[in-house]
Amino acid sequence: MALDCTYRLRIPHRVGQLATVCACIARHGGVVGDVSTISVARHEALREITIEVRDKAHADELAAGLAELPDVHVSWYHDRAFIAHDGGKLEVRGVRAVESNQHVRDVYTPGVARVSTAIHEHPELARKFTMIGRSVAIVTNGTRVLGLGDIGPVAAMPVMEGKALFYGQLVGISAVPILVDTKDVDEFVETVVRIAPGFGGIHLEDISAPACFEIERRLIEALPQPVMHDDVHGTAVVTFAAAIAACRHAGMRLDEAVVGQIGLGAAGFGIASLIHDAGVRRLVATDPNPGARDRASARGMEVADLETVMREADVVVATSGQPGLISPELVRPGQVVLALTNPVPEIEPDVALAAGAAFAADGTSVNNVLGYPGIFHGALLAGASAINLEMKRAAAWALAGLTVESELVPDVLDPAVHDAVAQAVRQAAIDSGAAVDGGGAAAAPRAA
Amino acid sequence: MALDCTYRLRIPHRVGQLATVCACIARHGGVVGDVSTISVARHEALREITIEVRDKAHADELAAGLAELPDVHVSWYHDRAFIAHDGGKLEVRGVRAVESNQHVRDVYTPGVARVSTAIHEHPELARKFTMIGRSVAIVTNGTRVLGLGDIGPVAAMPVMEGKALFYGQLVGISAVPILVDTKDVDEFVETVVRIAPGFGGIHLEDISAPACFEIERRLIEALPQPVMHDDVHGTAVVTFAAAIAACRHAGMRLDEAVVGQIGLGAAGFGIASLIHDAGVRRLVATDPNPGARDRASARGMEVADLETVMREADVVVATSGQPGLISPELVRPGQVVLALTNPVPEIEPDVALAAGAAFAADGTSVNNVLGYPGIFHGALLAGASAINLEMKRAAAWALAGLTVESELVPDVLDPAVHDAVAQAVRQAAIDSGAAVDGGGAAAAPRAA
Repeated sequence: MALDCTYRLRIPHRVGQLATVCACIARHGGVVGDVSTISVARHEALREITIEVRDKAHADELAAGLAELPDVHVSWYHDRAFIAHDGGKLEVRGVRAVESNQHVRDVYTPGVARVSTAIHEHPELARKFTMIGRSVAIVTNGTRVLGLGDIGPVAAMPVMEGKALFYGQLVGISAVPILVDTKDVDEFVETVVRIAPGFGGIHLEDISAPACFEIERRLIEALPQPVMHDDVHGTAVVTFAAAIAACRHAGMRLDEAVVGQIGLGAAGFGIASLIHDAGVRRLVATDPNPGARDRASARGMEVADLETVMREADVVVATSGQPGLISPELVRPGQVVLALTNPVPEIEPDVALAAGAAFAADGTSVNNVLGYPGIFHGALLAGASAINLEMKRAAAWALAGLTVESELVPDVLDPAVHDAVAQAVRQAAIDSGAAVDGGGAAAAPRAA
Repeated sequence: MALDCTYRLRIPHRVGQLATVCACIARHGGVVGDVSTISVARHEALREITIEVRDKAHADELAAGLAELPDVHVSWYHDRAFIAHDGGKLEVRGVRAVESNQHVRDVYTPGVARVSTAIHEHPELARKFTMIGRSVAIVTNGTRVLGLGDIGPVAAMPVMEGKALFYGQLVGISAVPILVDTKDVDEFVETVVRIAPGFGGIHLEDISAPACFEIERRLIEALPQPVMHDDVHGTAVVTFAAAIAACRHAGMRLDEAVVGQIGLGAAGFGIASLIHDAGVRRLVATDPNPGARDRASARGMEVADLETVMREADVVVATSGQPGLISPELVRPGQVVLALTNPVPEIEPDVALAAGAAFAADGTSVNNVLGYPGIFHGALLAGASAINLEMKRAAAWALAGLTVESELVPDVLDPAVHDAVAQAVRQAAIDSGAAVDGGGAAAAPRAA
C-alpha cells in the first residue's frame, strides 16, 4: 500500500538546495508531491515536502537518507492521513451562535416549546423547523470496509466521517455516522427502523453481501424516507456515467452495446442491475460465486463464464476484486475495458490497449463521492420517498454530461457538478412520482 | 404561554416616532424587548421590535393597533422561536475543508484505509483519530419533553438540537440527536447499546419516569462510556449549586441544613439523591405518587407529607410541577425556598419572602445548560467510564463557586464557567478512579 508522507525539513536557504533534496528523494525511490514553505529565516528555510513512499520502512529509509545531506535536518515525518485524521474529521455545531439571553429564549426554553408543540400538532413541520429535512444517517456495521473486509464498526468510523464531510462540503447535507454493532440482519434492520425518524435519508455503507441486499430491501419497505446502499447504487451510478463517457471516447453508444459485467458483489451487482434496468442491447454477467450468479439470474440477467463475457461484450466493466484477472488474450479488439478493482485492476489500461482495446481505464478516477451527495440531496429536495431507477439514471446522465472530453468522470470537488446531479435527481423524482410532497426543506441555503 | 414576537415596522424617521410606537405597544399590553434598526432612508426607518405578548391573538391585536398609527406600516410579525428554528439549528460539517486532490487522498481513499487499519489493530486509537472521543449522543424517545409530556421523538427534536448546539458552542463537543421511536424499555436499551460504539458519551434526555431510571441503570451497566440522564442528574447538579448559593445568601451552610425536597419525579429524585449522597444534616422528601415515595425510601431517604417537609426543612427545593402548591402559611420564617416549577412556581418568591422566608427564588434562572456540557466534557477529558457522585458534586461546587453575590447561578453563555466545570469534573474523575485512561482526546482544540 502506497503511503503519502509529509517530511518537515530544515534546509539551507541557498540556490540549488531543493534540487539536492529532490535528487536525494529520487535516489531513494520516493515520488515528490506538494512542497510548502513554512518559514524562511536568513540562512534556513523550513519546508514540508509530501513524498509518496511504498511503506513505513521505505519512509524511514528516506528520512535517514535526507538526514545525511549536509545541513539538512528532518524535524519530523508523518503519514499525511494520520495528520488529517487527528482529532477526527467531523464536527456538529449550531447553524447560528447563541449570543444573548434573547437568543437562548429563541432556540431553547421557552421558545423551543412552541416549536415542539407545533410539530406535535403538525408533524410535517419537522421538515421545516428541524435539521431532519437536510440530514442523512450513514449507517454501517463495518462488515466490508473498502478493500479491508470485516474490520468492525469502530474501525469503519474514519470512512463514515469521510463520507459525511463530503456531504457537508459539497451539498450542505448534515450527515451523521451511525455505527451499528451487530452482524444480525434482523437486529440491524430493527435498530435502523427505530432511529430513522431523526433523519431525512438513510445511507447504508460498507455492509457485506449478501446481507446488504436484504437489509436494504427491508429498510426500503419499512421506512417512509429514501434508503440507499451506496456501495451498490452510488457506485453503480458513477460507473454507469463512466461507461457512457468511455463509450463516447470509443465512438460507441452504451445503449446500443453489449455490456459485460465481471464480478457480482455489492458494487458489481448494483452496476449490472442499473445497466440492465436502464436498457442496453444485451447484458452478460459473471461471477465465480454461485449465490451471486443465482441472484443475477433471479434479477433477469444473462449469466455466463468469464471467457464468454469477454468474447461477447462491447463494453466490459470489471469489479471482481481480483487483480490481473483479465489476461490480454481475452481482450477483443475494439472493446471498451473498465477494470475497476483498486488498487490493482483486473488488467492495466496500457496492457488492454496494447491488446487492441479501443478504450481502457482503471478505477483510480471512478470515485463514488461523485454520486451519493447529489443523489441524496436531490431526493431530499424533492421530498422523495425512495431513490428509484429514474433518479439513478438521471444522476448518471448528469455526471456523463459534465465530463470533459479527456476524462472519464467530472471533478469530484466541483460543487457545480453536485448541484447538477441534485437538480437532475430532483426533477426525475418529481417526473417519476417518487416525490411525495413538493420538497423544499433541503433547499435551505447551505451554510457558508 | 408568553410569546416573543418580532415585528418589522416601517416608521417615519422623525424625532418622537419610536416613543409613539412604544406607547402604542404599552397601551395594548405588550412588553418591548430588543429593538434593531434594519435600515434608515431619508424619511423612513425600517426597524425590528421584539415584543413579549400573551399569545397569538394578542400578537394579532397588537399588529392591528400598530397599523393604525399614522405612517406606520407593519411589514410582518413572527414568533421569534420559529424564525430561529427555520431550517433547523444544527449542522454537521468537516473540521477542515477538502480543497485538493491531496486532501481527498488524506481524508478519504487511499489514506483513510491506513487509519481504519490502525484502529482495527489498536482500537484505542479511535479516540484520537475519529470524532468519537469528543462526541455525545443525545438520546430520547420524547415521552416527557419539557412540560409538554409525551409528544413523541420527532416533536422532541428541536429540544435535542438546542441541547446539542450548546454542547458545540460552549465546550466543543459534537453532540448528535438520536430519536429512538419506542416506549419499550428493552427495545430502547438494546437500540442504544447497538449504536453506542460511535459515541464517547450517552446523554439521555426527556424520557418519562419511572422508565428513565431503569433505562439509565441498564445502560450504565452495559456500556463502557459515561451515561447520564440529564433531566435527573444534570438538573440535580445545577439545583444543588443554586441551593448552595441560596444558603450563602441566607447566611446558612447547606451541609449543616435540613433539606426538604418536594416532588420526586425525574428531576426531583435526582436532586434528592445528589443532596442525600453528598451529605446534609437531614433530607426529607415528599411526593403524592406512592411509586415515587417507595423509590425514595428504597434509596434510603426519609419520606414524609408536604406539611412535615415544610415544617422541618431549613432549605426547601420544590420541583412538583404543581403551580401554587405551597401556600404562604406553610413557609417557616428564616427558610430558604427554591420553588422551581416553570413557568409558574409552587410559590412566588415575593409571596414566600413576605411570609418570612430568608431567601426565595423561582426556576427562571436555574438552567440545566449550566450543567451537562461541562460534566460530559470533563468526563471525556478524563476518559471516564462513568459519571459518579464525586464528579457531580465537583460540578455543583464549581458552579456555586462561580456564582456572583447577587445571583443564584453563573452566566450560562460564559465559556469560562463551562471550562471550570469541565476541569473540576475531570479532576474528580481522576481522583475518584473513574478515569480509565489518561484522557486527552477531548482536549483537542475547540473549532473556532
